[in-house]
Amino acid sequence: MTTSFSISRRAQALTSSAIREILKVTERPEVISFAGGLPSPATFPVERMREATEKVLRDAPHAALQYGPTEGFAPLREWIAERLGRAGAAIRPSQVLVTTGSQQGLDLLGKVFIDEGSKVLVEAPSYLGALQAFSLFQPAFSPMASDEQGVVVDALAPGQLAGGRFMYCLPNFQNPTGRRLPGERRTALVAKAAEAGVPIVEDDPYGELYYAGEPLPSLLSMNPDGVVYMGSFSKVLAPGLRLGYVVAPEAVLGKLVQAKQAADLHTPSFSQRIVHEVVRDGFLDQHIPTIRALYGRQCELMLDALDRHFPEQVRWNRPEGGMFIWVTLPEGIDSTALLARAIERNVAFVPGAPFFAADPRRNTLRLAFVTVPGERIEAGVRVLGELLREVLAEHAGLAA
Amino acid sequence: MTTSFSISRRAQALTSSAIREILKVTERPEVISFAGGLPSPATFPVERMREATEKVLRDAPHAALQYGPTEGFAPLREWIAERLGRAGAAIRPSQVLVTTGSQQGLDLLGKVFIDEGSKVLVEAPSYLGALQAFSLFQPAFSPMASDEQGVVVDALAPGQLAGGRFMYCLPNFQNPTGRRLPGERRTALVAKAAEAGVPIVEDDPYGELYYAGEPLPSLLSMNPDGVVYMGSFSKVLAPGLRLGYVVAPEAVLGKLVQAKQAADLHTPSFSQRIVHEVVRDGFLDQHIPTIRALYGRQCELMLDALDRHFPEQVRWNRPEGGMFIWVTLPEGIDSTALLARAIERNVAFVPGAPFFAADPRRNTLRLAFVTVPGERIEAGVRVLGELLREVLAEHAGLAA
Repeated sequence: MTTSFSISRRAQALTSSAIREILKVTERPEVISFAGGLPSPATFPVERMREATEKVLRDAPHAALQYGPTEGFAPLREWIAERLGRAGAAIRPSQVLVTTGSQQGLDLLGKVFIDEGSKVLVEAPSYLGALQAFSLFQPAFSPMASDEQGVVVDALAPGQLAGGRFMYCLPNFQNPTGRRLPGERRTALVAKAAEAGVPIVEDDPYGELYYAGEPLPSLLSMNPDGVVYMGSFSKVLAPGLRLGYVVAPEAVLGKLVQAKQAADLHTPSFSQRIVHEVVRDGFLDQHIPTIRALYGRQCELMLDALDRHFPEQVRWNRPEGGMFIWVTLPEGIDSTALLARAIERNVAFVPGAPFFAADPRRNTLRLAFVTVPGERIEAGVRVLGELLREVLAEHAGLAA
Repeated sequence: MTTSFSISRRAQALTSSAIREILKVTERPEVISFAGGLPSPATFPVERMREATEKVLRDAPHAALQYGPTEGFAPLREWIAERLGRAGAAIRPSQVLVTTGSQQGLDLLGKVFIDEGSKVLVEAPSYLGALQAFSLFQPAFSPMASDEQGVVVDALAPGQLAGGRFMYCLPNFQNPTGRRLPGERRTALVAKAAEAGVPIVEDDPYGELYYAGEPLPSLLSMNPDGVVYMGSFSKVLAPGLRLGYVVAPEAVLGKLVQAKQAADLHTPSFSQRIVHEVVRDGFLDQHIPTIRALYGRQCELMLDALDRHFPEQVRWNRPEGGMFIWVTLPEGIDSTALLARAIERNVAFVPGAPFFAADPRRNTLRLAFVTVPGERIEAGVRVLGELLREVLAEHAGLAA
């Protein structure tokens, strides 16, 4: 008899992500890719990492290479709590769980909060990696209406909130839209969720990447008992370390710790100690401003190119931080079909549809700008602009 | 309204592991602990790691710190396939998924194979971390009868195999028992599973740690199309890196890759490149024999102490490799109660009951010997022996 591998229902529903397939195409060097969500490697503090690694392997090699506690390296947990405290959220180190990238936090939250059919409120659109992680636990997604400023809090009816296991939000420079939720909407959203008794999961990998001015208060700082917060070192240090964290009320954290123990025992001791060594004396306070400046310049280059090359029927936002611009094409233009034609011309982006848990807006797309050199931003946007004019002309021809 | 965190049914069933709670107690330096499953830090190749880390940060710092492919670092996947090939299993690199410790492999297998109520065959006893990882997906465990040599293949009835999603086995120096499945039982087990069409999951973290002679053939080498194999660098290099791997037929691997993408995107690029640098030129062929020699000496020390100090009514095995000895007390002696009294005398071990998916044998316990200095092995075993004599006398008194 041939061995039969019976796949679970949750895994049968898994499909390879659009982003993943697209990234394969964009590995060709001639492709100008606005598709990847990668931070710029120019921002990786290599020298600093080298020094920290040397120090860890000199001062504590055996501890760095041995099993460690599931909750994470205690001094790193303390550092995280202290840093969130400086940003206005009173957090104890015992509320911090270090995770293997913030993606793992999403998996653990899915495990701990979602039963089959559980209602989970998500932004429309939302981060694809979160939709994938949660989907494995077979929730019923309830998309929240959004506009150019993010979730439209006034449109959130009590009936939609009722019975929600949690509400998943990226208030800062959201992936995929680059939108930032304004301060007054934050206050209203936190109040509304608290009133309904629904926890908020605040995913904040991009919060430090504002180009100018001051950060807005976190949802966590507004209601520490009702918010689970997720942070990451991927966008402020380097993603190849896979280091993130979840902050939650202690009772919830205990369940997340148990789920993490079964998931990978603990996040690598080695990388936790290296990162703690890198950040412990305030390095990020000098380092992050250089990332903000670079990303702000890159964003400006792309906005300038869009202004000059894109047809006037196309709309996009002007992000105040982060790594993404969200483009809305005229109704009826499908960005997935557009992508196929763009790739023939060696330009790539991510179609918007996969970011919607339901009712995809197929006329949207995401542009990432932080890893592309200025002259290639200009060239790629010009090619896309020409293609869009052709497509719009065809579309007008068909409609006539 | 207070925010209410509704916990999923699977997470409600999570309880903190006995091992975990015990490890907390054994952090006191005065405790002689035979409880931990930690490899000996004396075996960590610190100098070699230092050189490899320097080289990676010199030659490929940006790639090492950037996001990487979910499947793993290609040269490391090639190395793993090549090494398994040397051990007699013809494997392609495309069948290898690098995981964040082999614990993550267990989580991914649970996600991909287990629906609520799915039958999963496990050894009795089996690795606690596997039982925990699988339990999150709510299987129906079906324990396989075992004796001193491991699974009793002749006792496996077709009815027990029928409909099994998979059979989970640790054929080499099993955690917790230290047992090695003999060659003829391997052949019979693989044939029986293949006949029933049931996949085998072969978990093999200790396979290289035989004290003498030659390794036995892996189940994978006997039927590559019907076995999912899990390996680890934790016991041959260092566990703090969290680096393991799963080998599976390509169709299954694709599902595991998709599940891993949602779990943590990928295993840290940095540690994958370091480990590849450490192992690429045959280092393990010189290094692993030093671990075998150390662990063999440690095992001999403990067996010698057990022979001298333990009462004759107590039974234990004489492992041919690995890190554990399994002790069977006379019927009616509960090792969990014994542990409480042992800890009062500053000696710790792990009770056997949690390692059973059902029908725990409460008169069993696990002793780990690789991290404890010789004089403390002697002292700890003497204390345990004295305690056991007391307990046996009380027990005889009660029975009289």
